[in-house]
Amino acid sequence: MIDAHCHFITASLLDAVSFGALCTEASTHGVSYLDYPAALAIRRWCPPVLDLPAFASFDDYLARRAELGPDEVNRRLLRAAGVEALFVDTGLRPSSGRWLDLDGLAAASGAVVREVVRLETVAEDVAAAGASAAGFAAAFTSALAEATRDAVAVKSVLAYRHGLDIDPARPTPYAVTAAADGWLRAGGGRLTDPTLLRFLLWSALDLGLPIQLHTGFGDRDLRLHRSDPSLLQEWYAAAEPSGVPIVLLHCYPYHRQAGWLAHVYPNVYVDVGLTVTHASPALGEFFELAPFTKLLYSSDAYGLAELFLVGAAQFRAALSDWLTIDADRITAAVTTENARRVYGHA
Amino acid sequence: MIDAHCHFITASLLDAVSFGALCTEASTHGVSYLDYPAALAIRRWCPPVLDLPAFASFDDYLARRAELGPDEVNRRLLRAAGVEALFVDTGLRPSSGRWLDLDGLAAASGAVVREVVRLETVAEDVAAAGASAAGFAAAFTSALAEATRDAVAVKSVLAYRHGLDIDPARPTPYAVTAAADGWLRAGGGRLTDPTLLRFLLWSALDLGLPIQLHTGFGDRDLRLHRSDPSLLQEWYAAAEPSGVPIVLLHCYPYHRQAGWLAHVYPNVYVDVGLTVTHASPALGEFFELAPFTKLLYSSDAYGLAELFLVGAAQFRAALSDWLTIDADRITAAVTTENARRVYGHA
Amino acid sequence: MIDAHCHFITASLLDAVSFGALCTEASTHGVSYLDYPAALAIRRWCPPVLDLPAFASFDDYLARRAELGPDEVNRRLLRAAGVEALFVDTGLRPSSGRWLDLDGLAAASGAVVREVVRLETVAEDVAAAGASAAGFAAAFTSALAEATRDAVAVKSVLAYRHGLDIDPARPTPYAVTAAADGWLRAGGGRLTDPTLLRFLLWSALDLGLPIQLHTGFGDRDLRLHRSDPSLLQEWYAAAEPSGVPIVLLHCYPYHRQAGWLAHVYPNVYVDVGLTVTHASPALGEFFELAPFTKLLYSSDAYGLAELFLVGAAQFRAALSDWLTIDADRITAAVTTENARRVYGHA
Repeated sequence: MIDAHCHFITASLLDAVSFGALCTEASTHGVSYLDYPAALAIRRWCPPVLDLPAFASFDDYLARRAELGPDEVNRRLLRAAGVEALFVDTGLRPSSGRWLDLDGLAAASGAVVREVVRLETVAEDVAAAGASAAGFAAAFTSALAEATRDAVAVKSVLAYRHGLDIDPARPTPYAVTAAADGWLRAGGGRLTDPTLLRFLLWSALDLGLPIQLHTGFGDRDLRLHRSDPSLLQEWYAAAEPSGVPIVLLHCYPYHRQAGWLAHVYPNVYVDVGLTVTHASPALGEFFELAPFTKLLYSSDAYGLAELFLVGAAQFRAALSDWLTIDADRITAAVTTENARRVYGHA
Repeated sequence: MIDAHCHFITASLLDAVSFGALCTEASTHGVSYLDYPAALAIRRWCPPVLDLPAFASFDDYLARRAELGPDEVNRRLLRAAGVEALFVDTGLRPSSGRWLDLDGLAAASGAVVREVVRLETVAEDVAAAGASAAGFAAAFTSALAEATRDAVAVKSVLAYRHGLDIDPARPTPYAVTAAADGWLRAGGGRLTDPTLLRFLLWSALDLGLPIQLHTGFGDRDLRLHRSDPSLLQEWYAAAEPSGVPIVLLHCYPYHRQAGWLAHVYPNVYVDVGLTVTHASPALGEFFELAPFTKLLYSSDAYGLAELFLVGAAQFRAALSDWLTIDADRITAAVTTENARRVYGHA
Repeated sequence: MIDAHCHFITASLLDAVSFGALCTEASTHGVSYLDYPAALAIRRWCPPVLDLPAFASFDDYLARRAELGPDEVNRRLLRAAGVEALFVDTGLRPSSGRWLDLDGLAAASGAVVREVVRLETVAEDVAAAGASAAGFAAAFTSALAEATRDAVAVKSVLAYRHGLDIDPARPTPYAVTAAADGWLRAGGGRLTDPTLLRFLLWSALDLGLPIQLHTGFGDRDLRLHRSDPSLLQEWYAAAEPSGVPIVLLHCYPYHRQAGWLAHVYPNVYVDVGLTVTHASPALGEFFELAPFTKLLYSSDAYGLAELFLVGAAQFRAALSDWLTIDADRITAAVTTENARRVYGHA
C-alpha cells in the first residue's frame, strides 16, 4: 500500500487536549474532538496495536501511549498501517514541539519516504529571498525545479488561497509580472493573488510532475463552496495535452463530482485522503463513477501516527465491503499500482 | 428528548386530502402525497399508537383517527414521541381551522413548551405598527427584546426571503435606515430586503439568544441552490466573537456541508429537523463530520401530530443503527443534553 | 416496464476497445473502461443471457458475443430487459458502423418504439435549411410541429449547450430574431446561444409534449456545476401554468436536488436514467423526497444492448431492496404507470 499524501507527525508526549486537537481539522474552543466519529475510529483501530482492547477509553489509551513513549507508539502505529511508501507534503511546517522529519518518518515506518513540494511555499520562499517583480517568474521556475529534484509530486492549495473558481487560461508574462509587482510591494507573505496562483499551476504543468490539488473540506481557512473540484473543470481540459496527472485530494462533500471528473478526463485522478479518516461512510461513493484505474489512496494524516493506521484500516475495510468481484485485482490497483504508475514510483 | 424546533398542529378533523397536504412541503395540485416516503413512515410508526397494526392503510388509519377525535389523537401521538420539551416557532401562523396553541401543545404533550421567535415576523409587525425609517432599527431592537422575553431562541428565514448568499458584514445604521425607507414606502409587508434581513441577524447576535437558521430544503418559496448553509460561511466567522450559538436547521441536501461547518466553527451547530421526517435515509451523513457535541434533534413537525412521533422514532432508530460504541452517552447528548446546553434550557 | 429515454445501439461486431468505449461517458485515452463499476455490472447481469455464468471474464464474454453475432446478442439482451416500450432520443446520431434504427430496435426488442425529438437538432436543421433571422421563430415552430407528429416527448440539451443557469423568462420576439441573426450570420451549426435555447424551451411548452431535460452528469462537453437542475427552478415555476410535464433526466450528483424539485413542483418529474447504469448505489437517494407518482425509469442506454438490461435489472434490484411496504403498487407506478400517464402512452 502506498500512502500518497500525508504530513509530518509529532514525536512529543500528548495530553488529552493536544491529542484531541490533532484528531480534527477544527480549532477547538471548548469543543472536545474526542467526541467525534474520527476519534471513535481511533479507538476502534489503534488500542490493539498498543496492547489494549479495541474501543479502550481515551484515558486508558493516552496512559498507555505515555507509558510506551512517542517513539515506540509512532513505530508501532506506522508499521501497523502496512504502507510501503509515504509521500509527504512538506509545505505544512509544524510550529513547535518535537516532530518527525522525513528521515524520522522513514525510520519509524520502515517505508520509503518521498517528498511532495507545495507550490505556494516555493513561491513564498522566492518572494522572501528578494525576487523582483520582473524576475519572479524565472526565479520561481528555477526554484521549483531545484526544490522538486527528488520530489514525487507537487501540491497546490489554491482552494485555501483563493478558491477553485479561477480563469483556467495560462496567464501572460505581463500579467504575472504585474501581479508579482503588487504582491511584492505589499511585502510578499501568504500568496492569495489568483493570477500568481494560476501561474503556479501552469508552471507545474511545464515541470511535468503529478499535481496534487486540495479540493473539498479542510480547515476553516477555506471557503467550502469554492472548493468544489468541478469549478476547475476547464483547467483540467486545458491541462490535458501536457499529459500531467492531476490528483484531486479529499474531495468531500464534492467527491461525486470528483468521481465524474476522473471518469471523463484521462488526466484527472481522485484520492480518498482525509475523507478516509474523517468521513469514511462516504467512501463507497468514490467508487460510483471513477474507473478503478483512476482511484488513489492517501491518509492525509497530520500530527498523529494513529491517522496513518485509521486511514489504511478504513480503506481496506471499505474495499472489502464494497468489492464483490475481482477484489484482489482492484484492491491492488487502488492501494498500490495506480500510485506507482501515476507518480512514477518504482 | 428535546424537540428543539417545531410548529403548531391542527386540532381539526382531517380527510385524506387535507391529511395528505400536511404530510408534505409541497403544494398538492393533483399529486397524492400519501404516496410518498414520509407518508409511508407515518404508516410505519403511528397506527399502533391508535390501536391499529403497523402499516395499516390510510383509509383505516383516517377512519380510526376520526373515531378517536383530534384531541385524543394528538394527545396519544405527542406522548408517544416521548419528548420532555418542545421549542415552537410561532412565526408560521395557521390561517384557518382549529389549531393547538402553545398551551394546547403543552396540555396535549405533557411537555414543557417554549417559544422560538421569528425575526422577520417581529420586523414585519414593527413595520405594520407604523415605525418610521429612522426609527426602525430602535423599534425593532426594542420589539425583539420584548417578544423574546420568555423565548428560548430566535429564528431566521433568510433562506426564504433572499437566499444565504448575503454580505456577511454588519450593515451601517445609515444603510439600515435607507433600506427601511425603501421597504416602508413600499408599504412594508413581506420583508425581502437583504440589508434589513442582515440587520436582523446582527441584532440577534446582540440579543444573545441562540439563532436557528433555515437552511436547505423547505417549500417552493425558497431557491434551493441559494439555501446551502456554506454560502453564509463568512458570517459564522464574523459571529463567532459574540458567543451566540447558530443552529443550522434541516440542511438537506447540503447536510454534509453543514456537518463541516459544525466541525470547524465552535459557534455552529446542526439540527436534523425536517430531514429526519422527509429524508431519513440521509441521517447517517449528519454524523460524518459533526462532533457529537454539535448535533441537535428537532422534528420540524408542522400541522400533524404524527410528524412529532415519526421524527422522534426515526431519529432513535437511526442512532441505534449507527452508533456502535458509547451509544448511550452519545444518544443522551444528541437527543437531550446538547439542546439543554445550547438553549440554556434547565 | 417502460424505458422512457434511450438511444440507438450498434449492430456491429465489437472488440474489447470499442466495447469498452461504449461502456462509458468518457473519451478513453489509454484508460480501460472495462475496469469500471458499470462494466462490472455488465459482467453481473449479461453473461447468463448469452449462456455464460454471471461474472464471466470480458474475454469470454466478447468471444461469446462474436460467436452469437450482434443481431442475436441484441435480440437476447433487449428481450431480457423486459421492457414493453422504448422512447428513443433520435438526436444523437451514430457517426459510423452499422446501428439499429427505430425499426431495428422494435424488431430486436419486441417492444413498441417511439421517438423523442431533440429540440436543438430541429433548430439546427432549420438553420441548415436556410431560415432567415426574421423567419427563424416561425420556421422552428413549424418544423417542431412536423418533427414531433408521432413523437412521445421532446428533449433539451441546454445543460450541454450553455448550462442550466439561464434567464427563466420567455424571450421577446425581438430578442429571438436578434439572437438568430447573430447565430445564422456565424453560419449556424452547434446552437449555444442562451436566448435561442430558451426560446426552444418556451416553444416546447407551447407545443405541449412532455419535455425531457438533460441534468447532471454526462460526457465532458458539459460543465458539471452548471447542470444542477435546481439552477432552473424559476423556469419550472414559470412553466407550471402550461401543464406540460418536465422530466429531469439523470440528475446525479444533484439527484437530491431533483427529488426536492419533483416534490414541490407538480409539473416536475425525475428519471433515474444513466444514474441507474453508472451510479446505481445512489438510486435509493432518488426515493428520499420524490413522491412515487413523480419517479420515472429510463436506462439512457446508448450503443450497447447490454445497457438496457443492466439498467432494468439494477432498477428492479434497487426497488426490491428499498421498498418495504406496498412494493407491488409502487413498483408498478415507477416502472410503468407513471410513464404511461406522463407521456400519454396507451
